[in-house]
Parts: sequence; structure tokens; C-alpha cells
Amino acid sequence: MTNLYQNKKVILSKYPSGKAKKENFCIAEEEISDIKDNEMLVKSKFLGVDAALRLLIRDSDEFLFRVKENDILHGNIVGEVIESKNLNYDVGDYIVGSLGIQKYAVTDGSGVEKINTDYAEPKYWLGGMGIPGLTAYYALLDVCKPTAEKHVLITGAAGAVGSMAGQIAKICGSKVFGTTSSNEKCKWLVNELGYDYAFNYNDSGWLQNLKDASNGRLDIIFDNSGGDVMNESLKLIGMNGIVLLCGSTSQYFEDEMKGPSNYIWLGTMRASLQGFVIFDYESRYDEARINLANWFKDNKIKMPNHIIESSIESFPSAFEDLFDGKNLGKMMLQLND
Amino acid sequence: MTNLYQNKKVILSKYPSGKAKKENFCIAEEEISDIKDNEMLVKSKFLGVDAALRLLIRDSDEFLFRVKENDILHGNIVGEVIESKNLNYDVGDYIVGSLGIQKYAVTDGSGVEKINTDYAEPKYWLGGMGIPGLTAYYALLDVCKPTAEKHVLITGAAGAVGSMAGQIAKICGSKVFGTTSSNEKCKWLVNELGYDYAFNYNDSGWLQNLKDASNGRLDIIFDNSGGDVMNESLKLIGMNGIVLLCGSTSQYFEDEMKGPSNYIWLGTMRASLQGFVIFDYESRYDEARINLANWFKDNKIKMPNHIIESSIESFPSAFEDLFDGKNLGKMMLQLND
Repeated sequence: MTNLYQNKKVILSKYPSGKAKKENFCIAEEEISDIKDNEMLVKSKFLGVDAALRLLIRDSDEFLFRVKENDILHGNIVGEVIESKNLNYDVGDYIVGSLGIQKYAVTDGSGVEKINTDYAEPKYWLGGMGIPGLTAYYALLDVCKPTAEKHVLITGAAGAVGSMAGQIAKICGSKVFGTTSSNEKCKWLVNELGYDYAFNYNDSGWLQNLKDASNGRLDIIFDNSGGDVMNESLKLIGMNGIVLLCGSTSQYFEDEMKGPSNYIWLGTMRASLQGFVIFDYESRYDEARINLANWFKDNKIKMPNHIIESSIESFPSAFEDLFDGKNLGKMMLQLND
Repeated sequence: MTNLYQNKKVILSKYPSGKAKKENFCIAEEEISDIKDNEMLVKSKFLGVDAALRLLIRDSDEFLFRVKENDILHGNIVGEVIESKNLNYDVGDYIVGSLGIQKYAVTDGSGVEKINTDYAEPKYWLGGMGIPGLTAYYALLDVCKPTAEKHVLITGAAGAVGSMAGQIAKICGSKVFGTTSSNEKCKWLVNELGYDYAFNYNDSGWLQNLKDASNGRLDIIFDNSGGDVMNESLKLIGMNGIVLLCGSTSQYFEDEMKGPSNYIWLGTMRASLQGFVIFDYESRYDEARINLANWFKDNKIKMPNHIIESSIESFPSAFEDLFDGKNLGKMMLQLND
């Protein structure tokens, strides 16, 4: 290898209690001087700021891929190959994958995909073209099956997955409702993403307003938030409805997660709460990406990114901002140094 | 009509808080002196003591068929037609239906079925041949689809539905686990109903024992109880597992029902929580009954009844006993007077 690289990594220094704070992380440095045969060196361009990471940094063995104190924080990144001894990757290729929150990563390519920039430029591969977009695509189209007659509620509608899911449901002709945390985000959902209605769950009347707008019937609840919003909306689930369990961001930072007491309504309504994991669809990612990329090129969907241009030291505060709901779409840190 | 009949009805005198007590009910009397054309008079032989009734006597508009203070308590009964001006029913016919908790009922036959005693004698038509047996049959066979490879947990295993569901799962060759409230009931489940394992949830080690016996994998959780037992067992749900939401008896008497905080495991395991209502299968009741009756005659299943022979005045205390878990199978009051 021709150069020495000064890597910086975000380390979990202390398990958080409640929402994670800057103080729960620190930065560690190391030198990368060599790569082995079959490996490559990737320079991070975009670091995904992902709510699900909060689940991994709980002091509990219950979750897979957990991050312990003093471990590097997991996370998806988009990066550029800057050195390569791997025949499948050339210098200048862009990749996306779970390489951890760091400036440089050495990988043999496992768990990494090469970015096809004919589909969309690299910055879209953490959001609309990445796991969030693929999740929205398959969870909706393969499991929820929205149609023109259906009423679809997206909770966490302005988030990485929600912002894509609402637009895909609109492509299917459904009437689409969203919940989010501010009036500003409501306007964005309706004006920019084409949601039919959006509700600020911090307004006391949100449930009644949702009930009125939907005639009290939600055929599909695509749940990214969990907690009270999901629980209250269960009262509106329609006959044979489906609640897609995509995420529970409101609960990730709670020591004791709260279950939906209104689940009993699923019984009355012959409805189901359905778990979903995108990795089951890995062999079909390209099928989704062709459609997503075409919709994007044809201006049928947007791929909203919330990009913070800064250094890796800003990652912990961006993660704080994420749980304060400051993002419109996929939050990521763009490293320019 | 040739006679005057002195009817007695169980009336909800006061909405209960917590478990219903005798004091929440009273008995009202009335004379029945006539029936109109197309009506018949039914004398109750068996009054179903049914946990779901607790849901109807909540001071809340959320549940259908609610019973308000001073209303007669709803309930299924088996009775004999003793006067008839209805061409479809003769004196001496036995019927089953939702005619309320009373000694005599006048009905035009709506919501009532004639009992086919070739299948099984009348006392089985509130339990194994009735709604509980039909629920166990279709919820299991049509929705859960147990097979020889599957691990099936029945919560509330000794109850009216659970006692049937476990036996039907055994007919399918599954490995069947049950939870219940006492060691005595555990023995009964294994020795009398053929459960492979039964666990007393009042023993602190029940979950670990269930985990060990099932190798930590439950493909089907047929949930009659809700609450902590259901919530804890969710940790053992297997990949693509199904949790059949049949009932939540542990929650019916709670002012604030508790949701299953472990529902998030459904996500990880691509599992579903599925609502179910037996009334959707009304056109297929006879199909189930032919099989249930044949299994019964061939000694492949039992139809456990917990019969209390007493007067209608005992209904409230029987209902108390039900929520104290004193029954093995379907609890009913047999009126001999």
C-alpha cells in the first residue's frame, strides 16, 4: 500500500440510558498501513445515522449484532474504494455496506455491495436505494399489498423508511396518511412527498383528525414508530387489516419497552401484526432497485436525504438529533475531509 | 300457551372493577305468559360460564354487544324447546344459542341452532361442539396449520378453547405445550388430554422449563390468556411463527389492559400476531362438527366439561370461580330445577 491512513472510529464508551447522548461515544484513532490479499480499503463518504443502532447499544444480550462498550459502532456507510487487492473491486468503485462508523474500513467485500451509479448516485444508497428504500418497497408491495381502495397509515412518516413507504403507497393509488412530530414535517410530507394527510402526534387532536380523514378505517398500518402512536392507531385498524412491524423507534431508547395494549383490537378485526426483515429479500434487491431508480428518474418519487456535512466527530450529535426528530428523510453524515 | 313460566335472569347490577364479584350481579324475575307466532319458548338446561362475558360488562363503548347496568347478562345456553309456534322447531328439540343467562327464553330462532344429538348429546354443545370447539378447530387448522414438525404452545390450556386446541394439535402430530395455573391442571393436561408438556405459570421456572422442553422454538402460540404469560412466551417464537390471538382472559378484568412489550420479537422472527373471530366460519360449522363428533366417538379427543349442578342464583359465583381458574374445560351451570 502506498500510503498510511489515519483512521477515526466512533466507539461506544458507555451504554446509554434513555436517548443516547454525545457523552456515550468517543472517537478512537488508529493507523492503517496495509491490506491483505483479497481485501480493499474503503474511504467513507456518507455515514448512515440509523435509529436501529440504538437497539444494538443496549446492555442486553437479546439483540443480535450488539455493540458492547469500547466496540466500534456498527453502521452502514457509502464509501469509495481507494486501494484494492480484491479482483472484484477497482479503485474508484463506490460501495455500500455495514462497515461501521469510521473514516476508513478494510474489508474483503463480505456484506458489501458495489454501487451501480447508472441507477442513482452514491448518496442515495443509504436511503432510497439502500436498506430503507428496499424495506419500504418489499414490506409494502410484498406483504401489505396496497391498492387504490386502501387506506394506508405510515407512522414515522418523515423518517428514512417512512418517507419512501408513503410515496410507494401513492404509486399504488392508496390514500396515504402519515404521522410525524411537527407541523413543519407534516407540510413537507403533503407538499413534497404527496401524502394525502399528515398529522402531528404532538397535537392532542391528531387521532380524531386521522379518524375523520380516514373514515375510521386503516387497512394498512406501516409502523415505524411503535409506542403510543402505533397503539392509538390500532383502534382504527380495518377488517382483515395488516399492521406491518417495520420499526419501533419510539421504544428503542426505553429501558422498558411498552407493548401495544390495543392489540386486542386485532382480534376483533381479524387483523394481523406482521414482522418483517428485509434481509430475507436479498436475492431480489436488484428487482426493487430497477423500479426505484426508474421512479426516481421519472420524478415519480423523491429520495429524501438529510445530509449533514461535517467531520466524523459530529456523528454522536447527529444521532441525538435523529431521536429528536430533526430529520426529513434519511439522515447521514457526509465526510468531506 | 298452556302454562305460566316464572323466569329468572342474571342482571348486571353494577359494573365490576377488577374481577367480577357476586355483588356485581342480581337476579330479576318475570312471568312469561305468551309467545307470538314464529316464536318458541326455551327452557335453559346449561348456561355457559364464559370469560369473554367479562369484556361485555366493562363500562366502555369499545366492545360490541355490551351489557349495561340493569341489562340481562348475555351468554350462550343449551336449552329445550318446551313451547313452539315456530315451524322449524318442535317441542323436545334441543337448541344452542346466545339467549342470555336466564331460565327461560323466548326466541324466534335467530342466532339459535338446533342441536343434532346424533353428533353428541346436548351438554357438549357449549364446549367441544360449541363455539369453543369450533374456535379451536378453525383457528388451528385453518390459520395456524400445525404439522408433525411444529411446536405448539397453548396458553390457557385447560380452558374451554385451550383444552380442545391442544388435543386437535396432537391429532396433527405436533409437539404440544400448555400453560395453566396449577400443578393439578398440568397433570390433567398431560394425563387426560395428551399434552406433551404442561407448565404452571405460577412456578418461577416455567419459562425456562418451556424453553428447555421446546428447544427454545415455538412455531405456533395459540394465545387464550394474553398478559405476562403470552408476553414472555413471545421470546420463544420461531422463525415465521404465528401467534393466534384467540383470547386475553388475563386482561379482561383489568382497567388498563397490558400490551405485549416483547411484540418487537415478532419483527426479528418474521412472525405474526393474527386476530381471529369464529363467526367468519359460520357457514362451515357443520364440517368441523362432523370431524369433532367422529374424533369424540373414536376416543381421539375428549370434550371436557366442568359442570356445576345448581340453580341460576349460582351463576355469579361460578363466574368468579372461572377467573380464579377453577375449571377443567368448559365451565357451565346445569339447571335441574
